[in-house]
Amino acid sequence: MEINGSRRGRRSGTPWVQGDGTGFDVNETDQPVRRHSMLHGFTLPLSPRGEANLVPAPPWHYAGDVIGVEFWTTPEAAAATLPPGLAPDPSASGHGTAMFIDWQFSADGQDYLDPVRSQYREFMVLIDALWQDTPVAWCPYIYVDNDAALARGWIQGFPKKLGTVHQTRAFAAHSPATPRVEPGGRFAATASTAAQRIAEALVTLEQPVPDAAKLLTRPTVNLRHFPRLTAGQHDKPAVHELVMAVFDDLRIDNAWIGSGELSFLPARGEELAALHPERTGMGFRASLAYTVNDLQVLDD
Amino acid sequence: MEINGSRRGRRSGTPWVQGDGTGFDVNETDQPVRRHSMLHGFTLPLSPRGEANLVPAPPWHYAGDVIGVEFWTTPEAAAATLPPGLAPDPSASGHGTAMFIDWQFSADGQDYLDPVRSQYREFMVLIDALWQDTPVAWCPYIYVDNDAALARGWIQGFPKKLGTVHQTRAFAAHSPATPRVEPGGRFAATASTAAQRIAEALVTLEQPVPDAAKLLTRPTVNLRHFPRLTAGQHDKPAVHELVMAVFDDLRIDNAWIGSGELSFLPARGEELAALHPERTGMGFRASLAYTVNDLQVLDD
Amino acid sequence: MEINGSRRGRRSGTPWVQGDGTGFDVNETDQPVRRHSMLHGFTLPLSPRGEANLVPAPPWHYAGDVIGVEFWTTPEAAAATLPPGLAPDPSASGHGTAMFIDWQFSADGQDYLDPVRSQYREFMVLIDALWQDTPVAWCPYIYVDNDAALARGWIQGFPKKLGTVHQTRAFAAHSPATPRVEPGGRFAATASTAAQRIAEALVTLEQPVPDAAKLLTRPTVNLRHFPRLTAGQHDKPAVHELVMAVFDDLRIDNAWIGSGELSFLPARGEELAALHPERTGMGFRASLAYTVNDLQVLDD
Amino acid sequence: MEINGSRRGRRSGTPWVQGDGTGFDVNETDQPVRRHSMLHGFTLPLSPRGEANLVPAPPWHYAGDVIGVEFWTTPEAAAATLPPGLAPDPSASGHGTAMFIDWQFSADGQDYLDPVRSQYREFMVLIDALWQDTPVAWCPYIYVDNDAALARGWIQGFPKKLGTVHQTRAFAAHSPATPRVEPGGRFAATASTAAQRIAEALVTLEQPVPDAAKLLTRPTVNLRHFPRLTAGQHDKPAVHELVMAVFDDLRIDNAWIGSGELSFLPARGEELAALHPERTGMGFRASLAYTVNDLQVLDD
Repeated sequence: MEINGSRRGRRSGTPWVQGDGTGFDVNETDQPVRRHSMLHGFTLPLSPRGEANLVPAPPWHYAGDVIGVEFWTTPEAAAATLPPGLAPDPSASGHGTAMFIDWQFSADGQDYLDPVRSQYREFMVLIDALWQDTPVAWCPYIYVDNDAALARGWIQGFPKKLGTVHQTRAFAAHSPATPRVEPGGRFAATASTAAQRIAEALVTLEQPVPDAAKLLTRPTVNLRHFPRLTAGQHDKPAVHELVMAVFDDLRIDNAWIGSGELSFLPARGEELAALHPERTGMGFRASLAYTVNDLQVLDD
Repeated sequence: MEINGSRRGRRSGTPWVQGDGTGFDVNETDQPVRRHSMLHGFTLPLSPRGEANLVPAPPWHYAGDVIGVEFWTTPEAAAATLPPGLAPDPSASGHGTAMFIDWQFSADGQDYLDPVRSQYREFMVLIDALWQDTPVAWCPYIYVDNDAALARGWIQGFPKKLGTVHQTRAFAAHSPATPRVEPGGRFAATASTAAQRIAEALVTLEQPVPDAAKLLTRPTVNLRHFPRLTAGQHDKPAVHELVMAVFDDLRIDNAWIGSGELSFLPARGEELAALHPERTGMGFRASLAYTVNDLQVLDD
Repeated sequence: MEINGSRRGRRSGTPWVQGDGTGFDVNETDQPVRRHSMLHGFTLPLSPRGEANLVPAPPWHYAGDVIGVEFWTTPEAAAATLPPGLAPDPSASGHGTAMFIDWQFSADGQDYLDPVRSQYREFMVLIDALWQDTPVAWCPYIYVDNDAALARGWIQGFPKKLGTVHQTRAFAAHSPATPRVEPGGRFAATASTAAQRIAEALVTLEQPVPDAAKLLTRPTVNLRHFPRLTAGQHDKPAVHELVMAVFDDLRIDNAWIGSGELSFLPARGEELAALHPERTGMGFRASLAYTVNDLQVLDD
Repeated sequence: MEINGSRRGRRSGTPWVQGDGTGFDVNETDQPVRRHSMLHGFTLPLSPRGEANLVPAPPWHYAGDVIGVEFWTTPEAAAATLPPGLAPDPSASGHGTAMFIDWQFSADGQDYLDPVRSQYREFMVLIDALWQDTPVAWCPYIYVDNDAALARGWIQGFPKKLGTVHQTRAFAAHSPATPRVEPGGRFAATASTAAQRIAEALVTLEQPVPDAAKLLTRPTVNLRHFPRLTAGQHDKPAVHELVMAVFDDLRIDNAWIGSGELSFLPARGEELAALHPERTGMGFRASLAYTVNDLQVLDD
């Protein structure tokens, strides 16, 4: 079967030894010198063949179905989630968006032929904010059900934790078991973490959206943050930088809008419920795709 | 939110007390009589409101996407899986079908608005056989990732165990992260149980199927089997009957056929690998839907 | 490695063909007769080698650690869960027990050498009741995280659904990461189903229990219930019988009692929260073990 | 219930705003200034109350049970996993150790009272190596079933991925369902990732170990590695440093040694099987505990 060859039969990432590429002699003792091989990969684990890394090097391609609901929490609750470098957007009045996404991922090759690794489900919240004078979307909380997605998230600055996320699907064969993508079609979504329900949404479709680009207009700003463990430096992270996501080749298809309902539920070890929706706005459902190969560091 | 009301705000099943419906007095002592309520439900747990049962009463509606591969194992291996009452199909020469299905389920109401319960994934094998002179398909092994699906399976005679099943999905937004439903589109599927991989498949699409009914022509025969635990009766099951599945309102849409690859992998506590495919035939991908409200007991 | 041989290298259960044991010819056509093999197993799937069945034949041996809390709900709520055949226990005043158990299972052989299959976690509620004039414990709700445990449950009449259950463990190496089994030691437990939290408990140890048998004095009564799917018979289950569990070789070791806290949380598709504890009594923690090889059918 | 208060009712980590602690004004436009709150936490997500972070600040306390097997792979295979900065240990001849651990974690407070978050299972391999002239143990591959453990791993330089790990447990109540901690007692362990089995072990106990410190003599060396995503810098990680773990208050109790069996199984996307054990040595089982509050960066 070609699954193996097409998907992982390549070295991903970069050898972590510079120079002539023949290996690096670290032996400083007078014991017999034994040259070791190079390790390959983009993330840990770096490994001899570069196939074991949790995440291969970009480009990272994503395709999925999203169910979303826009909402307004209190401006104070929204502002409380913002990191230094971002300011509340006075025009937003606590506006945010909750999205539940069924994703499929591929780096180069056809990773989607290993669905147990390449598929995952995501729940995220975006809060309107300002970076300098640019309207942006800040992601305070996001949950996925896959370790590779978790690791890609941290590298992008998305603050991912593991969760259990589900959304109603629409199947082509008509049945009482599936809504149709038509006016009145209803799609629900739920998210849980640590075996506690944290979010529920319901979208009722009204009409297709000819110009779907308006669904996602603000660039996403994240915080890359990687701590130090050295004693005395726990408050001096090794990486701590605001970044703006770069989504290439963004496509949105089959977009519909309608009404949306949304609730955030209190859960131990979570602060999502502090963003309690006071009211909701548009609900939407769409297919989307994009590629990640870069991000922009927002130096102050 | 209407999720709650629409989905579970009803009594499912039947009160397990006949008569005037006001409860049944079992108290035979001279203690004060305390009448208890009736329990409701189709499966355990029967409960006061009839909302806790793992499976509500039929009709059961299903919609899903299937990836399948037909295969030939040895006639001996195929025959070895058949129960008394079924005979090998001499014309089949060890022919069977492996299917991986992403399902969504609803009883009456819109259970699909509770996706964590209503969605599940399934891997199953069907083996050609004869019941009397009728060509049928016998299901020796089937795996799902959901307890309600497991219970419905047992009630239908499907020998379900828990497993982890995945299939490549096709999303509407074009991307290197998703195959297209077009000639050359490739879809993989995998199944595992007890954290061991047991099956892998790969389908490459060639052409749509105008008359998809030919994909699933044989009725499915199962064995309803529910043991006794009373000492001395462990070999005298309380229920042990061949049954033929009744699928109402069967619909197959967006069916494509092409080539298929398939492997069954050895695993502790499993016998699937004894059905090792010697060769494969058609691969297919389709959406399908049906309703279950009945089955036919095959009295000998 | 001997794991394989010792654990599954045997036929479990019984051949489902009576008579001379050489197979059964069901072919009534004039096609060439092909005799098939016998199938073996205690539950589905019956299979050629009898190794694939989800549950092998008894005896079933269990060992585990339990964290429990006794509680009182309203007598009305307790009574509402009872099936015909059981009456409320007037002396109990709504008394019940919640237990969270880390289990390890073996049939004959050393199944505990396949821990992914043999270990599971369970949360259950027992309600005091009367069968005729015998004080018994009725199990209205129970959750496990393993399909074999689920199937054994149904065969015993325990109304099991899948859930996620955890309890604090005590490790021998002293650390702030583990409570000690000593006065003041605190152990928590949680249960969830369908990604919703349904129960939480906290036990604070006070003293060891010399005579632990008093912790579990009432025999457990369950309802074996297996539905029919034939149209028109959905309310006429194939099996519907009260049974009394038979636990052989019951051992309770390292039992401690203390105070207990307990809460049941509302969840969609569940009715546990209707048993809301109005107050709690003793908390306890113990190791226990028993063997199941029988049950007693309670004919009316 | 005190679970909530004792476990998470505190701010963990450090406010990410220095200065007077009253918040930081980033608004450079002439819009009305709105001051936002500080974010707290050690890892992402940083949040208003500091309760949502996946991992709170150290100290991190661990207690658990380990099943381990020492093994010898080829010296070439062992050397191939080493990063620059480590050299093969000529005296080791491909020696390594595989360990399966049931862990319980607490930061300050009693996190073990939230067992769904604080418990996890781990499978890891350690390979003998030299750092300068110091014998050390290098961890090429490690798997856990919990996101917080994954994050702590990355911060320590352990190359963790998600996996499914199980080990036989010993319960106090005697039963055929549990081995005893005595000569001849047998304990198995298994590990899987992405629904593929990758490792199996079996330990047969022979005798207790009076001086258990000899079981774990080499300090562990890891590689902290956090990539950059900026285009053109994918091969220039933001963090890439060898570190030596610092385990405080190490305790090993109830240690037993005996014989060990071990196999590594090939799996897609994994390279563990390249460390195929050519022979095994001692098996062991023990309880262990330690605290992590520091690490040592190994500058070259």
